Amino acid sequence: MTKGAGAADRRGRFITFEGGEGAGKSTQIARAASFLKDRQIDPVVTREPGGSPGAEQIRRLLVEGEPGRWDAVTEMLLHFAARRDHVRTVIAPALAEGRWVLCDRFVDSTLAYQGYGHGLGEAPVRQLADLTIDGAWPDLTIVLDLPVEQGLKRAGERAGREHRYERMGLDFHRRLREGFLAIAAADPDRCRVINAMRPVDEIADKIAISLEQLIIVY
Amino acid sequence: MTKGAGAADRRGRFITFEGGEGAGKSTQIARAASFLKDRQIDPVVTREPGGSPGAEQIRRLLVEGEPGRWDAVTEMLLHFAARRDHVRTVIAPALAEGRWVLCDRFVDSTLAYQGYGHGLGEAPVRQLADLTIDGAWPDLTIVLDLPVEQGLKRAGERAGREHRYERMGLDFHRRLREGFLAIAAADPDRCRVINAMRPVDEIADKIAISLEQLIIVY
Repeated sequence: MTKGAGAADRRGRFITFEGGEGAGKSTQIARAASFLKDRQIDPVVTREPGGSPGAEQIRRLLVEGEPGRWDAVTEMLLHFAARRDHVRTVIAPALAEGRWVLCDRFVDSTLAYQGYGHGLGEAPVRQLADLTIDGAWPDLTIVLDLPVEQGLKRAGERAGREHRYERMGLDFHRRLREGFLAIAAADPDRCRVINAMRPVDEIADKIAISLEQLIIVY
Repeated sequence: MTKGAGAADRRGRFITFEGGEGAGKSTQIARAASFLKDRQIDPVVTREPGGSPGAEQIRRLLVEGEPGRWDAVTEMLLHFAARRDHVRTVIAPALAEGRWVLCDRFVDSTLAYQGYGHGLGEAPVRQLADLTIDGAWPDLTIVLDLPVEQGLKRAGERAGREHRYERMGLDFHRRLREGFLAIAAADPDRCRVINAMRPVDEIADKIAISLEQLIIVY
């Protein structure tokens, strides 16, 4: 069943994990990576904004500082600048080698945060995606869905100084959640929404089923 | 003739200075500012990439480091992210107050450097301009034109570490020069091309004539 996995004769698989703050993406990405490794697939695990040396420098401009530091359009442009670097130097080369890529956030986050949360709408975000990702849309996107209050509570318990987005207010985070659900509803072949309030093992099992399907059709 | 200059009853004038490295933009901007001050117009003098605190942080990513650090699309996105911040926080508020703005480089530089120099073409650059500058096209653009070898020689004599673009090779700088001339030829109402090999005083006099016209129609 895993024929070709890791070999260069076939493009790898690109899997993204999306959701609001505190949805448990990191935990589930680690579980997914472990599931794939058990099947002799060694995935590239990466994240956005960031994931490449250039993109990580841009990330610092985005995740630190005051909430009102950039307007939504500037933010969108910075996210796509970082994404372009990440796709070009990390994601696309890995997929071309037949590697699987697990990525914490991708275009859907910009659709949700800037398009829905900040009210720019989907159109400019999709226009920039067309311009920058060279068709590198994910094969599978896991959307971890969680009530806003619960997510912010979990996120607030984390250490560190990358809290700029968490401080944007409840209404912003509600629009964000609605955005992710709307994006997923419009693209059901690619997106799978999972209730992030369920136990970690149960969520990991659901994701594993989706990964198994990608291995089978590989 | 200067009625309304500096007053809030009328949008100010937006004047950009363009050209390759070493064309003498800084010198001529200082001369233009002095000319306007003599006519009781106190202009805002600014520059790109940069010109606002946020944009200056993005500038550092663009002008320092190795020439191959970013690809052309990433560069274009970073330039427009910086420009968005600059327009939103400096240029547009100044124009709304009736101030004149003199800016060292603007959209035409991205058209020339990324569109022509790096071969992206004009289309994506104009698409991003539509998305980001909210119609803030300059009223007048001075294009200082200079043979490439001459410009690089002058620029190389400057101190500092902001030499990333200068190191991009002669062919790049030739495409750049052709780009600026093509942009100006396509928009003769806005752009005035001036031979930057002429003496500084003569160039300043030519620019003063264009400024005088803007004062008269003010």
